[in-house]
Amino acid sequence: MENLTMLTDLYQLTMMQGHLVNGYQHKEAVFDVFFRTLPFQGGYALAAGLEQVVEYIEKLTFSEENLVYLRSLNLFNEDFIEELRNFRFTGDIDAVPEGTPVFPFEPLIRVKGRIFETQLLETAILNLVNFETLIATKASRVMAAADGASVMEFGLRRAQGPDAGILGARAAFIGGCQSTSNVLAGERYGIPVSGTQAHSWIQCFPSELEAFRAFARTFPDSCLLLVDTYSALESGVPNAIKVGLELEAEGHHFQGIRLDSGDLTYLSREARRMLDEAGLKNAIIVGSNDLDEETIFAVRAQGAKIDAWGVGTHLITSKDSPSLGGVYKLAAEGEQGVFHPRLKVSENISKITNPGIKK
Amino acid sequence: MENLTMLTDLYQLTMMQGHLVNGYQHKEAVFDVFFRTLPFQGGYALAAGLEQVVEYIEKLTFSEENLVYLRSLNLFNEDFIEELRNFRFTGDIDAVPEGTPVFPFEPLIRVKGRIFETQLLETAILNLVNFETLIATKASRVMAAADGASVMEFGLRRAQGPDAGILGARAAFIGGCQSTSNVLAGERYGIPVSGTQAHSWIQCFPSELEAFRAFARTFPDSCLLLVDTYSALESGVPNAIKVGLELEAEGHHFQGIRLDSGDLTYLSREARRMLDEAGLKNAIIVGSNDLDEETIFAVRAQGAKIDAWGVGTHLITSKDSPSLGGVYKLAAEGEQGVFHPRLKVSENISKITNPGIKK
Repeated sequence: MENLTMLTDLYQLTMMQGHLVNGYQHKEAVFDVFFRTLPFQGGYALAAGLEQVVEYIEKLTFSEENLVYLRSLNLFNEDFIEELRNFRFTGDIDAVPEGTPVFPFEPLIRVKGRIFETQLLETAILNLVNFETLIATKASRVMAAADGASVMEFGLRRAQGPDAGILGARAAFIGGCQSTSNVLAGERYGIPVSGTQAHSWIQCFPSELEAFRAFARTFPDSCLLLVDTYSALESGVPNAIKVGLELEAEGHHFQGIRLDSGDLTYLSREARRMLDEAGLKNAIIVGSNDLDEETIFAVRAQGAKIDAWGVGTHLITSKDSPSLGGVYKLAAEGEQGVFHPRLKVSENISKITNPGIKK
Repeated sequence: MENLTMLTDLYQLTMMQGHLVNGYQHKEAVFDVFFRTLPFQGGYALAAGLEQVVEYIEKLTFSEENLVYLRSLNLFNEDFIEELRNFRFTGDIDAVPEGTPVFPFEPLIRVKGRIFETQLLETAILNLVNFETLIATKASRVMAAADGASVMEFGLRRAQGPDAGILGARAAFIGGCQSTSNVLAGERYGIPVSGTQAHSWIQCFPSELEAFRAFARTFPDSCLLLVDTYSALESGVPNAIKVGLELEAEGHHFQGIRLDSGDLTYLSREARRMLDEAGLKNAIIVGSNDLDEETIFAVRAQGAKIDAWGVGTHLITSKDSPSLGGVYKLAAEGEQGVFHPRLKVSENISKITNPGIKK
């Protein structure tokens, strides 16, 4: 992850200058990161994003280029720019471990330090923790629906930018997914990577059978064939069986097939029957195509014969609930280690905070 | 933006090795990037993300570390690793300019080149174009609802990771927003930045009035006060008027107030009346708090007196439609400049592609 020092809302910087101008910069403050409502009307959330928060804090320094840019805004004075030049975070961070179930109003992270430094951290911490916690929670719901079957995270092309793909794959892994299609996430975080071929592979060849044979030649021991480019049951599965039997005859293990469209229940049951009748009982069936925890649950309940699921858009964007409203709220402020609880009163009763340092 | 060469689905790499093993790597291919359905049940989308696609392609090279990682997967042969070591994109890209209205099945980007290289580009291009096009479109809808008033993008803390905040701010600017709270997006893309103070600023002082005066001292000519930490009409607006009059008496221009909770229509009308009666007719009222195009339209229709809007979560995550289903489909393949149209037939009729190179 690059240096994210400037990944902050402008008002954090104006408030920091305000603290400096008014002589409050050494006042100590405690901020809590928590959310008020569980996502997905669910019963829990899984905390995630702490590793990125630590990396962000370790790299926190303003470069000379950053200072030139900030000076160009005509908002900041030279005393403040000088404070930023020497800025390092010297406070304390407490947090629950990633993957911990968490509940409303419970602090996921507590930041304690000079108000000048704790104020700066708000935006980046919320950005990282809100997103990863959301995706880890969504993934754990998908895993529950898959009931022990393997789930592969396939969402990169629909993720909200590169980081959403990479950090989303990481959070999905924390939430229980077995692998990701995202090679960069695999390289960076050691997550197993998976994937075989796309419809465009099939289309590049004069026939589906030739496309399958070419793939089998390339990956004889990890050959999983996408069978729905034309007709899954009339063309895809019969061709896959042909190639599967050829592979097995040569002493290889035929991995199986992937269905990526149509009625997954019907197609998977028919495909299973056809594979079994051909003697390919160990070939697996992978199902994908716009899945989430509800469709997986429904397709399973209808008796689908699917051994592994590929889940993309709905998981990586948390499509039915694409944001977590985690907040960073002042719990107490003080001087020389003596803290006074602080309370925010709001016209929205749900926004009133719980004052004091939580145990 | 960092080097995103490894930001790809594993199956692009397995297919590339397949092309190499089967001697098809020099075959030429044309891929179209398009979407099938308009987001938000709207009438158009605004293309965005091209600048990031160009940057991605310019940086496309596999490092030795990348190759070590890929070798560790036990999927790829040495010929393929060697091809990747020398990989550069040598094909052609055609695209509509960013900010262009686009419609279903119309190519936003066309990629032409050797199948070996065009295949690799799919995932990263879709990731970048899908997200930025979605947010630019959402922003243009919010702008339409604001009907000429200024809109500030405030979503960074709820964005789906750092890039979603940065590229989302960029796309929102393409879609018509006047500024962003995101300092890194401002520095990187020259977008105007905006923002003043948070509720935590008010809470750091013994009283709201002292907090307002401290802020006015720090920014006497750009003082916009957040008035809803306690009671907007009983405390916030009267205190803001006091400080505003003090600033004006000293020869400064008092910028105005921000409402961030409660009934924005009622509060803004009352606040406007109070500001006007105090002689602060030029002070503006900024409204924020979980807004989108529908709430802005409704609050305006009810007669709210709001001069500028701050829009966060709903815009930066495109909350009601958080993904765009843009695809990258083989339109034609050929050799030595002679192309044959290619068609994908699917059991889902909507997924059947339109073959041939589009004009």
